[in-house]
Amino acid sequence: MFKKTKRLSLLLTIIMVFSITTTALAKEQKAESYLDGKSALVFMTDFGLKDGAVSAMKGVAFGVDKDLRMFDLSHDITSYDIWEGAYRLKQTASYWPKGTVFVNVVDPGVGTDRNSIVLKTKTGHYFVGPDNGLFTLIAEDMGIEEVRRIDESKNRLEGSSKSYTFHGRDIFAYVGARLASGNLKYEDVGPKLKNEVVKISYQKPELKGNTVSGNIPILDIQYGNIWSNISDELFEKLNPKVGEVFQVEIYNKDKLIYNEKVPYANSFGDVEDGKPLLYLNSLLNVSVALNMDSFADTYKVTSGPDWTIKVTKIVK
Amino acid sequence: MFKKTKRLSLLLTIIMVFSITTTALAKEQKAESYLDGKSALVFMTDFGLKDGAVSAMKGVAFGVDKDLRMFDLSHDITSYDIWEGAYRLKQTASYWPKGTVFVNVVDPGVGTDRNSIVLKTKTGHYFVGPDNGLFTLIAEDMGIEEVRRIDESKNRLEGSSKSYTFHGRDIFAYVGARLASGNLKYEDVGPKLKNEVVKISYQKPELKGNTVSGNIPILDIQYGNIWSNISDELFEKLNPKVGEVFQVEIYNKDKLIYNEKVPYANSFGDVEDGKPLLYLNSLLNVSVALNMDSFADTYKVTSGPDWTIKVTKIVK
Amino acid sequence: MFKKTKRLSLLLTIIMVFSITTTALAKEQKAESYLDGKSALVFMTDFGLKDGAVSAMKGVAFGVDKDLRMFDLSHDITSYDIWEGAYRLKQTASYWPKGTVFVNVVDPGVGTDRNSIVLKTKTGHYFVGPDNGLFTLIAEDMGIEEVRRIDESKNRLEGSSKSYTFHGRDIFAYVGARLASGNLKYEDVGPKLKNEVVKISYQKPELKGNTVSGNIPILDIQYGNIWSNISDELFEKLNPKVGEVFQVEIYNKDKLIYNEKVPYANSFGDVEDGKPLLYLNSLLNVSVALNMDSFADTYKVTSGPDWTIKVTKIVK
Repeated sequence: MFKKTKRLSLLLTIIMVFSITTTALAKEQKAESYLDGKSALVFMTDFGLKDGAVSAMKGVAFGVDKDLRMFDLSHDITSYDIWEGAYRLKQTASYWPKGTVFVNVVDPGVGTDRNSIVLKTKTGHYFVGPDNGLFTLIAEDMGIEEVRRIDESKNRLEGSSKSYTFHGRDIFAYVGARLASGNLKYEDVGPKLKNEVVKISYQKPELKGNTVSGNIPILDIQYGNIWSNISDELFEKLNPKVGEVFQVEIYNKDKLIYNEKVPYANSFGDVEDGKPLLYLNSLLNVSVALNMDSFADTYKVTSGPDWTIKVTKIVK
Repeated sequence: MFKKTKRLSLLLTIIMVFSITTTALAKEQKAESYLDGKSALVFMTDFGLKDGAVSAMKGVAFGVDKDLRMFDLSHDITSYDIWEGAYRLKQTASYWPKGTVFVNVVDPGVGTDRNSIVLKTKTGHYFVGPDNGLFTLIAEDMGIEEVRRIDESKNRLEGSSKSYTFHGRDIFAYVGARLASGNLKYEDVGPKLKNEVVKISYQKPELKGNTVSGNIPILDIQYGNIWSNISDELFEKLNPKVGEVFQVEIYNKDKLIYNEKVPYANSFGDVEDGKPLLYLNSLLNVSVALNMDSFADTYKVTSGPDWTIKVTKIVK
Repeated sequence: MFKKTKRLSLLLTIIMVFSITTTALAKEQKAESYLDGKSALVFMTDFGLKDGAVSAMKGVAFGVDKDLRMFDLSHDITSYDIWEGAYRLKQTASYWPKGTVFVNVVDPGVGTDRNSIVLKTKTGHYFVGPDNGLFTLIAEDMGIEEVRRIDESKNRLEGSSKSYTFHGRDIFAYVGARLASGNLKYEDVGPKLKNEVVKISYQKPELKGNTVSGNIPILDIQYGNIWSNISDELFEKLNPKVGEVFQVEIYNKDKLIYNEKVPYANSFGDVEDGKPLLYLNSLLNVSVALNMDSFADTYKVTSGPDWTIKVTKIVK
């Protein structure tokens, strides 16, 4: 009898050890893919929220896994504006943890031969969407770990393979949901491509003499502030001091739109209402604003590849 | 001792069998109502998101069950536009799984004698809201399984029964949350009514000779595309070939607004920028668009019962 | 052998009792703080949803706890409009259960010496944000239980302590998420301050003779209805009857903008389309509207401290 009981407890011990080992192994695998079934699924589109398109995408994702954690990046990307989408991804993605799956639909070329891909970055984030330039900035910032083309013959919403495909819903939301839920391994998305994505060319920031130049990729639209792609590291080569006044020029192509002396400030409260300030925004990039007013509206400045900003140290 | 051990294992077996049976029975019950406590609760209103009305509704729902899965269909339905709400439901609901509970508030007649109902469709979806025509298209598409009037004397937010009721929050969100959480059985919503809902009359699609006609129920507002209620099945009776050119007429009442030859295309990329195309949208309905431009803005076309589209096969 | 088995069952009993006791104790602690790890985290900002700022905040919160329940109050507060934010909080917060954590960012003074605080109300709700008047109305309605200044040296997103801080993301979202997840105790937020918050002064409602007067704190913006801060209790001192006609005056400072006879109605349906009505809104405050039309647009009435409404009983 003793032996029997002992055998039972031995069996229990074996089962426990086995299940601990299994769990440990599972964890190890999870650590590699970051897709642990608790990943966030984050949506970005140019669909707006007026009609039901975004809701249909989420319905499909919910049908894949009722425990999915779904969030929105933005659905108000300007229609067909791939550059704006690329910038919003860059602005946001790094604040989400490893394993987050982004479903991205700004897709003017839908139905043409652009690839549907899932990009895995070196940081462990996953980006589902069209390979049309939308991943330009993310690929630069986060590094490309692997690119896979979505095999649309296998990986698509069941019953959706009729003459017309709503890619955002039937392919991208569905594949994103399966990845985030842990039901689809990254390797099973489709064939591995070269470690490249389609890129949009744009003006890189540079330092010449006492001047740093850069592009205005986007406006801080809610407040009308002007953001540049000039990093704090580059700007610091001018040895800026808080309170120091710089010459700020803004060009649309070759046309000078704004040319004023602007103080470098720690916060908006450092200057009077309506006065300009030079500051580092939340991405630590050089920016210009009017305290309590819209710089963009006041001086008719917008963003995109045609816009350039130059900041010059005033040397007496 | 042997017996004791055996008895123990017998007991364990009985417990296991019992719990499996219980689970099986529970599953069977769940299968009937589809309300398994993991249902999505999906909100549609004309409240917008600027004030706190939608958040108050969600707060009430969260108070019912902290594990509720809440989502939005849209809160930007045009104020009081029951038809638009009806269309958004039709466009979206079928992409959500069985058991999903929709809370719908487009309710110009709130405070009058319109009924507050929960419609259960044959597809296993639940629709909570006013019986004012909002369920016209869903009832046609999904079929009516049962209609119950909400007994507002029993089923309302505690402490809400003062002189004024915010139906969206105190009745609809509260009842929807209790259904989705599995705390309220459908049978306990209130008295069963006839299997009917209030319906808005509208122009049905039809084929006459070489022409298919239909209504323009809605615009694809973000892009300015024109959607019709003409299905792919009906359109296929004209034997359309990709690339074939059709005569497209659009009328506002009897006034001809647009009359051009338009090619049938598989995707937007098939025509040049700014050119028109005839295509099947994500609902597989006949639609018209300009590639990379807004058809609606260009030709001042909107939607609603006054708008008609006719597509005619050109026979030589 | 018998003893061995008995000892085993005794051990099991002890473990069970222990775990029940632990759970009971844990529950008791939870009941005091209301932060049970299942709290909702509700965001209100003036950031809009066009860029990625709100999504970055949620990414940070998700990084704190993947099981967090996140919701939105509104992100469309008018830029820098602290009063509007204060009103939206008042309108909404009480519909969320005890323990709900609100992260609030309407912060024109960011970077100045305004305090970052967490207000705990007597109702058991938590409000994270700048102490700039945003909590004026919530403090009045819910009562102040305790106020703590956020110790930004300890309680901030890891890696965020560079020259520039995005308070909404690095401090408020992060601290809010840690509170809602149960990972940060309220006592550990930072030093306890006096039981006060910064308050915006505003016109209180009053009764003089046959007239009740009050402020127009906000419009029911979606429908253009006029809301006042006059409660049903105060209004009832005029003994209003449904159908009774009152004299309604609206002033902008001293300028009379509107002066008409308006019936008191139970619901919008009680008057004809386009006609005015006096009613109690969902907060049970005196309000004025046009049935099926916008009162605000028709009579150019807006809201804020300059606007006054007077309702007078007509005595013959």
